[in-house]
Amino acid sequence: MGRTKVNEDLAKERRSAGFNSDEFSAWWYGGWEKVAEKRKNEEIFFKNPELQPAIPLHYLSHKEMYEELVRQGTVVLSQIKELKHPEEINPAQLVMKLRAAGVISPASPFGLHFSMFIQTILGQATPEQQQRWLMRALKCEIIGTYAQTELGHGTFIRGLETTATYDEKSREFVLNSPTLSSFKWWPGGLGHTANCAIVMAQLIIRGERQGIFPFFVQIRDENTHMPLRGVKVGDIGAKMGLKSTNNGFLGFTNHRIPRENMLMKNAQVLEDGTFVKAPMSVLTYGTMVFVRVMIVRDMSNRLAQAATIATRYSAVRKQSPINPDEPEPQILDHVTQQNKIFPQLAKSVIFKLAADLIIDIYNSVNSDLARGKHDRLPELHALSCALKAISSTDAVAGVEICRLSCGGHGYLECSGFPTLLGFVAAAYTYEGENTVLLLQTARFLMKAAKDPDLSPTVAFLKRYPDYKIKKRWDGSIGGMIEAFEAVAAAKIRIAAESVEQRIREGKKPGTAANLSSIELVAAADAHCRAFILRAGAESMEKVSKSVSPALAGVLKDLLELYAVDAAKKALGDLLCFTTITEGDIGQLQKRLEDVLARLRPNAVAIVDGFDFPDEVLKSALGAYDGNVYERIYEDAMKSPLNYEPVNASFHKYLKPFTKGNSKL
Amino acid sequence: MGRTKVNEDLAKERRSAGFNSDEFSAWWYGGWEKVAEKRKNEEIFFKNPELQPAIPLHYLSHKEMYEELVRQGTVVLSQIKELKHPEEINPAQLVMKLRAAGVISPASPFGLHFSMFIQTILGQATPEQQQRWLMRALKCEIIGTYAQTELGHGTFIRGLETTATYDEKSREFVLNSPTLSSFKWWPGGLGHTANCAIVMAQLIIRGERQGIFPFFVQIRDENTHMPLRGVKVGDIGAKMGLKSTNNGFLGFTNHRIPRENMLMKNAQVLEDGTFVKAPMSVLTYGTMVFVRVMIVRDMSNRLAQAATIATRYSAVRKQSPINPDEPEPQILDHVTQQNKIFPQLAKSVIFKLAADLIIDIYNSVNSDLARGKHDRLPELHALSCALKAISSTDAVAGVEICRLSCGGHGYLECSGFPTLLGFVAAAYTYEGENTVLLLQTARFLMKAAKDPDLSPTVAFLKRYPDYKIKKRWDGSIGGMIEAFEAVAAAKIRIAAESVEQRIREGKKPGTAANLSSIELVAAADAHCRAFILRAGAESMEKVSKSVSPALAGVLKDLLELYAVDAAKKALGDLLCFTTITEGDIGQLQKRLEDVLARLRPNAVAIVDGFDFPDEVLKSALGAYDGNVYERIYEDAMKSPLNYEPVNASFHKYLKPFTKGNSKL
Repeated sequence: MGRTKVNEDLAKERRSAGFNSDEFSAWWYGGWEKVAEKRKNEEIFFKNPELQPAIPLHYLSHKEMYEELVRQGTVVLSQIKELKHPEEINPAQLVMKLRAAGVISPASPFGLHFSMFIQTILGQATPEQQQRWLMRALKCEIIGTYAQTELGHGTFIRGLETTATYDEKSREFVLNSPTLSSFKWWPGGLGHTANCAIVMAQLIIRGERQGIFPFFVQIRDENTHMPLRGVKVGDIGAKMGLKSTNNGFLGFTNHRIPRENMLMKNAQVLEDGTFVKAPMSVLTYGTMVFVRVMIVRDMSNRLAQAATIATRYSAVRKQSPINPDEPEPQILDHVTQQNKIFPQLAKSVIFKLAADLIIDIYNSVNSDLARGKHDRLPELHALSCALKAISSTDAVAGVEICRLSCGGHGYLECSGFPTLLGFVAAAYTYEGENTVLLLQTARFLMKAAKDPDLSPTVAFLKRYPDYKIKKRWDGSIGGMIEAFEAVAAAKIRIAAESVEQRIREGKKPGTAANLSSIELVAAADAHCRAFILRAGAESMEKVSKSVSPALAGVLKDLLELYAVDAAKKALGDLLCFTTITEGDIGQLQKRLEDVLARLRPNAVAIVDGFDFPDEVLKSALGAYDGNVYERIYEDAMKSPLNYEPVNASFHKYLKPFTKGNSKL
Repeated sequence: MGRTKVNEDLAKERRSAGFNSDEFSAWWYGGWEKVAEKRKNEEIFFKNPELQPAIPLHYLSHKEMYEELVRQGTVVLSQIKELKHPEEINPAQLVMKLRAAGVISPASPFGLHFSMFIQTILGQATPEQQQRWLMRALKCEIIGTYAQTELGHGTFIRGLETTATYDEKSREFVLNSPTLSSFKWWPGGLGHTANCAIVMAQLIIRGERQGIFPFFVQIRDENTHMPLRGVKVGDIGAKMGLKSTNNGFLGFTNHRIPRENMLMKNAQVLEDGTFVKAPMSVLTYGTMVFVRVMIVRDMSNRLAQAATIATRYSAVRKQSPINPDEPEPQILDHVTQQNKIFPQLAKSVIFKLAADLIIDIYNSVNSDLARGKHDRLPELHALSCALKAISSTDAVAGVEICRLSCGGHGYLECSGFPTLLGFVAAAYTYEGENTVLLLQTARFLMKAAKDPDLSPTVAFLKRYPDYKIKKRWDGSIGGMIEAFEAVAAAKIRIAAESVEQRIREGKKPGTAANLSSIELVAAADAHCRAFILRAGAESMEKVSKSVSPALAGVLKDLLELYAVDAAKKALGDLLCFTTITEGDIGQLQKRLEDVLARLRPNAVAIVDGFDFPDEVLKSALGAYDGNVYERIYEDAMKSPLNYEPVNASFHKYLKPFTKGNSKL
């Protein structure tokens, strides 16, 4: 855009920061080389003039936005040379590259093709099946999606209604959508982009239901793109976010596919209709865990983006003198503003560390699995459920707080916040609705209450056998971790007692759990928050030794803020289950104010350290140069309403109306 | 749409409710006649086929949406016969009617014309000025807006930069926008709809700034609608909500208006440039209070709408058996679901009661003012600030909770939630940013801490002179009100001590207040929540005597739920400042579970009692007939993407790309 000047206040913030934000970037991305690689990819994919639309997406209609995203998607994919040189395809590296290019994004109509579609083929198709589909999918000769959720059923997978009935005579599966509520609903790219899909359906053999299994189903003709006979497919309509994902619906009327199209790496249906069960379902478990941990990372990332926008804007925006005789300060100098934004910075960092730790556990569990050991899988599953739920809940709240911290301008689409909010709000629901996930975690914790030796991350239950004995409060980070564990132990035991009491009173176990579900959710929440703090603190401990003292100091401040903020939010629990006093609470308030003040001069450098290019932030408020007002104005000028001084509706509707009135 | 059948589960809920929802409506709207009148208006304005667009708004582009809303607005306005018969205009009644017709809505490009524009003329123009503008405005011969907020300044009004310099020679004001940040930004209808505006500007006489005053400014030619010379006006672009409001920008270059266009009911500029100050600014204070209380009512209304959608959907949707051997229940039977939705119902009702009480105080203050007494004005202002802040904060959270309770489908535009969220999220910021408002309330409370005789709503401070003495906990509603007041008193005193301590340490008062601002906000929050509970309980007490015992029982349950929910959220404070024990907290949990269970069979009847027509809810999930899936499907079918089986982007982008790959 030809502007080079950086806003002066922002430049000053950068000059006076107490640490090097490049070092932060290197730590955040796992090394200097990774940062360099990332920047190189961004250069390739973002600077392409074909990807700079004349009209920002938010001015387009639902249909126009989709068409523009298909255009952009094919431009980006065409830049990836491996797609043209199949001999070079390494699926894992390709996916990495696509992620960097933003093609694998919940906002791309091609997102599910490269993630769930290809990954399900990799994980659940036999080698022969892979040969038929995998390379064609990787080379984008076919475009697929993953169709599981239906209009009437989401998180409760057993309730899915789409049927795949085996016809022994023709050796085919007959797909049907028996009800309106059985229509597949939501899969990304399904509307008008994909020509095939992995369809999850109730397998029926000789009138008997065998459970839910995946089938490879062609849905559109490869040449004409017309839906095949027996296939009803289209767009599910406009949404609050992820607007260009092309979520679709899919209904079947006696749509036949060959037997060989059931993904048979695990369960199988033989020619004669014999059903062969899968040996173990642990592998699909593993995928779910992995997907959820990826969501936690994404939530950390989105929070970091929101905090970046809010921090830079707050360094540029000036408003309301602190003392009557003074000039208007940067709004970042208002302590309430710091208390909105900085805790989101801290959460972003701590969530990332917790996600990293889970990935470590995941990797070690995976090598255990290879040796036939799978006793840590339920723990890992429980943790990943809760962590996905808590991180997305906090990300929704945090992005919204950052948005609100920017006042009215945070309400503009060009602020980037509405898009960000659309991303995080979706994560609350997809891959398992959060309350349902927390209840799954709680089910694991109820077992752990009886057997704390179940796994390492619930071992703390042994240290707090009786919640009536208050844990001694100690305000150190270590002491706070223990306090949170004592709270978690107490809430787990209270929930367990509550369920058991109801069972003793004659309630069925499910009924008892439902009646106690508020306490069960609270227990899972407390357990997860204790885990996050411990994981964050332990990782931070290690990190601090490998970075400069200046950066270590900043990271320590972020941990301190995370812990103090968490403690302040949990005061009721801490007062119930620890010996914390009003004096200690006053101390926490002081620590909060102190750490906000320490972070203030480093805030801009921290968000610079996240190293988001402007093309990713897409925010007039959060751009690196801080030319906030110029960019807001520029975006408004791109509004097609501003192409003409007088809108057609004046002549068509407004003038006849107002002049009609004045003639009276 | 030709369907008449109501979903069976919903019909059953209605048959088995324990009270009459029509009686609820009569109470909610203030009498049977009011309900009848409301329904009659809805019949007139909503059943007009000209107002049923073929394509739902959410499929349109930013520009198309605006054009459609101008069309709809002129259709509705043309139906209002008073506009054609000026002799019949009674401004107050007209505004009521327009509100019912949905023309006065933050989503209409004509909204500010009928609210702020006309009201400012009524309140601040001299009789001669009113003669020039008022009738023309009421008859819609001119369309106006109210232009105060600028790109660089919002809540801090003194910082506004637009200048109106008096030119004694020509007896004109010269309007200028000296910087980009001084451009007016945000006024609704300003973009391409209004041809005049009340502009708030810095009055400069002989080089001296006199403060901010209102000016009537023509901005577009009445015949051609072209912007006048020296006027730069247009659309500010897309937003996350209120998408059709046509928010605009406005910049001036030496734009001259006659001296007589300054609104001179209060302050005046005489021909020779003599500035005559306004006797008192109390009247404008009154308007601000009134506008904020209207926002509280609106928040109550929006929460009720969100809860209506979520409740009806949850009665229709079935998912996840409670016990393995049972069928899938209505999701409203899951206790966690009740705990999401019912507290929002309760908040909606209690916020309305609190708003009603403030209106009573407002009316009595207004009659005081007429007698020259204005000692309760600061209290009223402080209360209305905090109440607006708290109700909008809770409304944003509550609407989002209701949305999330509907799982993925709450993410669809056709659920109605994204639009609702757009409404409430805007209220967080407009008419004063919430944190700034709470700090204003806190300023009043700091005075009250020294002088609790200041006004009746802070008199409770006298009962709790020392926060170190814990208030005896008593779980009755009366006891809970006192407990909340004890908490508020404690937090007010702690904040006051904190500010004073900092001043003693040598900080300037503003600096001290900024450093203590987290505690100041907390004090204002606690004070407001105590006020809401007391107001709600006292009003409920009166209401209960005038309705049937069955309805009184339901209302009592809603109050109980509001109080218990509030107490559970404030446990930390209650443990610090009252004698509440863990046993009492266990009791609260039990009361929560009990009241949710009592409300469960009445929930659908309660939301029916809000009596929102489908045309207001605009929700596939929340329609009266509960045909959820059919309506979602219908909305999707209206997506222009579904008009053709194959989208043009396939031939243009997708096929060249995929076929290009397969040829390799």
